[in-house]
Amino acid sequence: MNPSWLLVLDLVGIAAFASTGALVAVRQQLDIFGALVLGMVTGLGGGVLRDLLIGDVPPAALVDWRYLAVPAAMAVLAFWFHPTMGRLERQVLRLDAVGLGVFCVAGAVKAHEAGLAVLPAALLGLVTAVGGGIMRDVLADRVPAIFGGELYATPAFAGALLAAVGHHVGWDPAWYVVPAAVAIGWRLLALRLGWSAPLPPDPRS
Amino acid sequence: MNPSWLLVLDLVGIAAFASTGALVAVRQQLDIFGALVLGMVTGLGGGVLRDLLIGDVPPAALVDWRYLAVPAAMAVLAFWFHPTMGRLERQVLRLDAVGLGVFCVAGAVKAHEAGLAVLPAALLGLVTAVGGGIMRDVLADRVPAIFGGELYATPAFAGALLAAVGHHVGWDPAWYVVPAAVAIGWRLLALRLGWSAPLPPDPRS
Amino acid sequence: MNPSWLLVLDLVGIAAFASTGALVAVRQQLDIFGALVLGMVTGLGGGVLRDLLIGDVPPAALVDWRYLAVPAAMAVLAFWFHPTMGRLERQVLRLDAVGLGVFCVAGAVKAHEAGLAVLPAALLGLVTAVGGGIMRDVLADRVPAIFGGELYATPAFAGALLAAVGHHVGWDPAWYVVPAAVAIGWRLLALRLGWSAPLPPDPRS
Repeated sequence: MNPSWLLVLDLVGIAAFASTGALVAVRQQLDIFGALVLGMVTGLGGGVLRDLLIGDVPPAALVDWRYLAVPAAMAVLAFWFHPTMGRLERQVLRLDAVGLGVFCVAGAVKAHEAGLAVLPAALLGLVTAVGGGIMRDVLADRVPAIFGGELYATPAFAGALLAAVGHHVGWDPAWYVVPAAVAIGWRLLALRLGWSAPLPPDPRS
Repeated sequence: MNPSWLLVLDLVGIAAFASTGALVAVRQQLDIFGALVLGMVTGLGGGVLRDLLIGDVPPAALVDWRYLAVPAAMAVLAFWFHPTMGRLERQVLRLDAVGLGVFCVAGAVKAHEAGLAVLPAALLGLVTAVGGGIMRDVLADRVPAIFGGELYATPAFAGALLAAVGHHVGWDPAWYVVPAAVAIGWRLLALRLGWSAPLPPDPRS
Repeated sequence: MNPSWLLVLDLVGIAAFASTGALVAVRQQLDIFGALVLGMVTGLGGGVLRDLLIGDVPPAALVDWRYLAVPAAMAVLAFWFHPTMGRLERQVLRLDAVGLGVFCVAGAVKAHEAGLAVLPAALLGLVTAVGGGIMRDVLADRVPAIFGGELYATPAFAGALLAAVGHHVGWDPAWYVVPAAVAIGWRLLALRLGWSAPLPPDPRS
């Protein structure tokens, strides 16, 4: 479940996540260190939290140097070229959807391999996919963007659940393309069509 | 120390904590996913943090499905029926006091069983009891409510310390009712009588 | 690498960090419990996070009672005597620089001893040094001060990197004075001369 093309996709996701983190830092007028921290936390935070919760320490992000180099480089790029990156926001959001799909599947499979049941494994897949973005927003002192009605977590949970079930029934590795595609496609459609998650019912009704 | 009545109390505490989390989410106009995350984090966050700190991974909350199902269900209920839940706020606060008492005792005993000394075990009992509420407020982008003068942490620490001492001297399990009752009773009295924690002295005096 | 003089420096750093935490709590008009939590989190949070990430649980801060007693005592002192402590702010900042230097070196060495490579070990040295301060600011609901342009993280990372390289090539323990002095001296100079970290380039240029 970790051939080289998956590593490439994983790094693409980390890079996209890291640029969203650094762009948030730039918009808050944080310094270069703030951009680096927000970039690395957004790119790696979800996976590190999953690894802590399943007891896989030190986390993969601290063992393979590419997991540190890619988000650090993206954060520096986004910091210096943020006007250009800002114009590329839609492209960044599309890469972010790829990251979401890869992370939710890889996280769920890793958690299920670690011995968790299907539902907790799916939950950790979701944590892998959205944990970094939540940490980014907490550090930037704002309510996490994904609580604000955008359809972001649901596609990730659907992909994670499907992947955990697949791992439970012994899928051939190639099949994991399906849950990743479900999450990515659903998220891209939600972006294009403005789908949103339910808000609380009006108390006066 | 884990008979079925303790599990029931534990789940009552988790349910009460989870509804406070979901109600905070609703008041901030977060979406259903925000209510689920805040509910589950409030209900389970303190125990998960304790388990991480004593190295008991994966945490109990990820192994027993009831620990996931109860806060998720409560969060959804609070999200859809929040006008009613809001009217029940005093009852929710009373159940929250039960959760506080059960969590501080169970957390301190578990930490002491894991080999910690009495004082650090009591501290982890406190972390178990108040950690989830602090995480809820951090995620909702506000200063943790329990830093604001309400008497909430002191009863929990008293109960946790008493329970850790009791475990140290080899109490019979039935005795743990006492520290839980101390924490719950003290907290309920503080609620009813408006007791508060000391605020900083005025710099001009 | 842990003789008694290092323990003394470590406790000096923890005490200085803890007083910055408690002073932030006082300025936000939090109660005594808020001051205790912010003090202990600022003093111990970075080291605890490092210990979680390298799998050294329970963290040292929960095993040696002095690591709990010192920040708790400092938080209470800062809470009651905050007008005086506020006047001593420059002295507190100087002790804070000592803490920064000791923590970044001790953290990097401990992480490298745990088997991490030089660069991740240096990163964990940085986490040890700045993690507590970031948690303090998150709990106090503000953007972490160290993202705001002050030169704080760079000296810590420089010291951590030098210490990790030194440990890699097998330095004699006495040599670790050098990276600590580099970090402390650089930070003190930055304080005195108002050096700052780069802010994002103006988008209109």
